[in-house]
Amino acid sequence: MNLESELYPRKTDGVLHGRMTMGEVPESHPRHASLMSRQRLVDAMKEGLLADSALIAHGRGEAFDYLLGEQTMPGATMAIDEVAARLLIAKQPVISVNGNTVALACDELLQIADTLGCPLEVNIYYRTPERMTALLGRIRSRATALNLNHVEILGANPNGRIPGLDGPRANCCQEGILGADVVLVPLEDGDRCEALVAMGKQVFVIDLNPLSRTAKTATICIVDEVQRTSSALLSRLRNPKDSDPHFDADASRRAVLEVMLGALERD
Amino acid sequence: MNLESELYPRKTDGVLHGRMTMGEVPESHPRHASLMSRQRLVDAMKEGLLADSALIAHGRGEAFDYLLGEQTMPGATMAIDEVAARLLIAKQPVISVNGNTVALACDELLQIADTLGCPLEVNIYYRTPERMTALLGRIRSRATALNLNHVEILGANPNGRIPGLDGPRANCCQEGILGADVVLVPLEDGDRCEALVAMGKQVFVIDLNPLSRTAKTATICIVDEVQRTSSALLSRLRNPKDSDPHFDADASRRAVLEVMLGALERD
Repeated sequence: MNLESELYPRKTDGVLHGRMTMGEVPESHPRHASLMSRQRLVDAMKEGLLADSALIAHGRGEAFDYLLGEQTMPGATMAIDEVAARLLIAKQPVISVNGNTVALACDELLQIADTLGCPLEVNIYYRTPERMTALLGRIRSRATALNLNHVEILGANPNGRIPGLDGPRANCCQEGILGADVVLVPLEDGDRCEALVAMGKQVFVIDLNPLSRTAKTATICIVDEVQRTSSALLSRLRNPKDSDPHFDADASRRAVLEVMLGALERD
Repeated sequence: MNLESELYPRKTDGVLHGRMTMGEVPESHPRHASLMSRQRLVDAMKEGLLADSALIAHGRGEAFDYLLGEQTMPGATMAIDEVAARLLIAKQPVISVNGNTVALACDELLQIADTLGCPLEVNIYYRTPERMTALLGRIRSRATALNLNHVEILGANPNGRIPGLDGPRANCCQEGILGADVVLVPLEDGDRCEALVAMGKQVFVIDLNPLSRTAKTATICIVDEVQRTSSALLSRLRNPKDSDPHFDADASRRAVLEVMLGALERD
């Protein structure tokens, strides 16, 4: 499979296949951000942050992002603006993160949690002590590096369960996800997204597949890449717009889907 | 990212996220084949057969296959029939395999090589002694298991180079790829596909992305999943049709692209 070459006419040998190190891809490269994301996932896998299938999930996202030209679309920007507005008026917001999210956008999400004064909860589908320790360690070390040690990091000691889910994936924290009125949860699983919505929460997700159950079930789905969205969301939180009473989440999702259709049709 | 749930209404907990072992997914599961493929890739990664980014590449393919409902489309079947016919009349065909191909369809491709009486050449983009040893070992062990030790396995000692390519990815065998008139090469890189076509060879590829440079450059691209195509190709080689002088490779590719468009439009 070779997705990049037709969007960008020529690749730099050795750069596009996951072998480069952070320093080797020039910032001027048209796929710099995407290649850095890929490398972050490969590194995170080696560090034990990810489940076995995490790289495959990332690749699926890459295919959809490729159809977007790896740019945030206007439909997604509308959703980002609305998510920012609603996070700012939430009573008890929380940010729920998994392995891929931490690998891709840990710094930005810590800064968002700081801006909102809300906790960040590690909540993973395949909960093992090793992965939880690795993820919590990574987040705490990034919080220290960013001088954000005051941000509350939850997940180590879950004291509640999401109703309607079985197994360890239901575990969560009362002072985090369980008690929140608004959950920002990038890359969420469809089952859990449904269960959180069923609890009456507003659930904001980030998902590159506009057809996924998650995308369709969430209160608002931002159809965009996690790190791009997190950066844009952070900017918007610092310079917010009012919530739009007419915001149409389904129209936002479909607007991005239309761009993907256009990319396939242009062939 | 959660691609499966909207095609298939409910997932079996723990099955769709790469944690199952071969025995755990019932054959009746609607995504049995796809889940087995995923597991084969995860296993192959642990065995050192794959480059770092191989799982990501597999995930990209999954996204396109998801749009096909994980079925071989009529446009692809037409291409398979024509590829079979042309392989049977080739003077010196060869099958070129990389890590993902070996992980997904080693048995089928060995049987195709046996049927054609042609060699199978390991030819990887990121050639390292460790990966070459692991891949050659895997193929030879499968050949033994299938009683196909007579199939010639090339690649250990390249004695030629593909013109126009730099680095180790150009290395190949005179008695294999370099001397062949027809190359069947699933999951080929765009650069190498172009270079082989420029040598005047017929290049048949299998690529789930109908927009890729590989798909557009190849003499014929079968837009389908590697193992499904390999199985179908083997059947067709044993019960061949004549080559169709009016076969239109671009129309075949576009027919499958249309199916993907339809899947996005049905939303």
